[in-house]
Amino acid sequence: METAYFNGKLVPKNEIKISPDDRGFLFADGVYEVIRWYEGFFYDMPGHVSRLKRSVRELRINWDGAETFPSFALDLIKLNKLDNQPAMVYLQVTRGAARRIHVFPDPEVSPTVYAFAWGFTPDIRLKESGIKVMLKEDIRWSRCDIKSLALLPNALSLQEASENGMKECIFVRNGLITEGAYSNIFFIIDGTLFTHPESNYILSGVTRKNILRIAQEAGINIREEAVQENRIRFITEAFVSNTGFEVMPVINLGGNTIGEGVPGPVTRLISDKFDGEIKALKNKT
Amino acid sequence: METAYFNGKLVPKNEIKISPDDRGFLFADGVYEVIRWYEGFFYDMPGHVSRLKRSVRELRINWDGAETFPSFALDLIKLNKLDNQPAMVYLQVTRGAARRIHVFPDPEVSPTVYAFAWGFTPDIRLKESGIKVMLKEDIRWSRCDIKSLALLPNALSLQEASENGMKECIFVRNGLITEGAYSNIFFIIDGTLFTHPESNYILSGVTRKNILRIAQEAGINIREEAVQENRIRFITEAFVSNTGFEVMPVINLGGNTIGEGVPGPVTRLISDKFDGEIKALKNKT
Repeated sequence: METAYFNGKLVPKNEIKISPDDRGFLFADGVYEVIRWYEGFFYDMPGHVSRLKRSVRELRINWDGAETFPSFALDLIKLNKLDNQPAMVYLQVTRGAARRIHVFPDPEVSPTVYAFAWGFTPDIRLKESGIKVMLKEDIRWSRCDIKSLALLPNALSLQEASENGMKECIFVRNGLITEGAYSNIFFIIDGTLFTHPESNYILSGVTRKNILRIAQEAGINIREEAVQENRIRFITEAFVSNTGFEVMPVINLGGNTIGEGVPGPVTRLISDKFDGEIKALKNKT
Repeated sequence: METAYFNGKLVPKNEIKISPDDRGFLFADGVYEVIRWYEGFFYDMPGHVSRLKRSVRELRINWDGAETFPSFALDLIKLNKLDNQPAMVYLQVTRGAARRIHVFPDPEVSPTVYAFAWGFTPDIRLKESGIKVMLKEDIRWSRCDIKSLALLPNALSLQEASENGMKECIFVRNGLITEGAYSNIFFIIDGTLFTHPESNYILSGVTRKNILRIAQEAGINIREEAVQENRIRFITEAFVSNTGFEVMPVINLGGNTIGEGVPGPVTRLISDKFDGEIKALKNKT
């Protein structure tokens, strides 16, 4: 029986019932996090907790439980017997259930806090081959920095990519490549690592930040600067990052073969260093 | 006891429980409608049914029940004893509950269909005085033509307006005034009625369409053309429309007094004709 977390309690997942008045259901009025469990530890839990705090602050959701996430996330791993396998924990916090009007409930209501865990098998072959990704105009809102539940544009874009045999959809806004529907994207141009700077047009990915740190430590030249769509021909390597992908080589971007059509050397270097950190952390636990 | 509609059945509202796996809760992956009941009839039910069909088609939600909406909406009015008062019916259709991945569930799952009704008291004084509205950059996605559940930007914008003592937030995109967070907006400039044309940047309001028809029948010159923010000083009248507002005069737009700061003659004419149609329909039922 699957155990989940709901409003402070660990309960059978199939017993959790959301009110139809929940603002998560009616208005996408909530935020979420997905964190990875590596057989013994969560990857950068402080990074996720910090972003979670920012998300609830940006939406002014009155929830002060972000510091309890590490504890119940671990409970979910253990109670679901996921300790010894790759797993994920998903957490969602909404503004709570109230009569349906757009403005925030007054008086305030209790937020709805829901989390669950699941085991997963990373697709190692994809990292060897690299992936093809779609490229299209960014249809999302202009507060992509908030990890909110308003994911309809992301779902529609990934569906479109998937139907075209691609694993991610990369967005272009005002001629600049921003990020993917559920990942950040990096490019190598003239040996320099490019990625869109933090702004309201991208989510500040936890993996993204760690990759930038790793690249810096490896002495790679970094420019947090958006790449123009019309400069794709100068890109020699590309990769996307998120909690599930880690460092995932991109070999084709919107129909344009990147480099030799295989994962490039800078991508491999960063990926190897990322994997090395994970191994070192595993050995410590 | 309040009766609601859930997946084909009329049930006590407090017994309805949404799965935490529902894509409406996780991804804002659904659409909605709000229709008004005028003590005896629904206002332009065919218009709402037609838009509902378009919404589910745009999101490729496999639900063919749009034609049943009139029937269960009426059931909700009657069972909740709202027949003889102003009321609203809200309907929401999501893609259904499935394991959380962005792409559409495969195989497909049953959509979640939820509706409820409530009585309300229109604020007549507001129509006499007119309302002040905020003006700000449109932060929403670029598919505002779909009446989707991804309403977080709308909720945040209306909250901001409300905290500034304003009843609506009007959006500007690329220098052009588009629409409000939950209404369409009309302007009178040089005696001509302006409103943003149908496009991916506005919702095609049912009330908007009826107002355009009424204005045309009244011989008013109409231009479905966006008004530039920098032409606000030429606006002599403004009003917003939605199912609840009907025709609601705007006397201040983003700090700019419109006309004499009172509802203008063209607005009053259209509002009177709108009210006249409602009265005629009431007499027919």
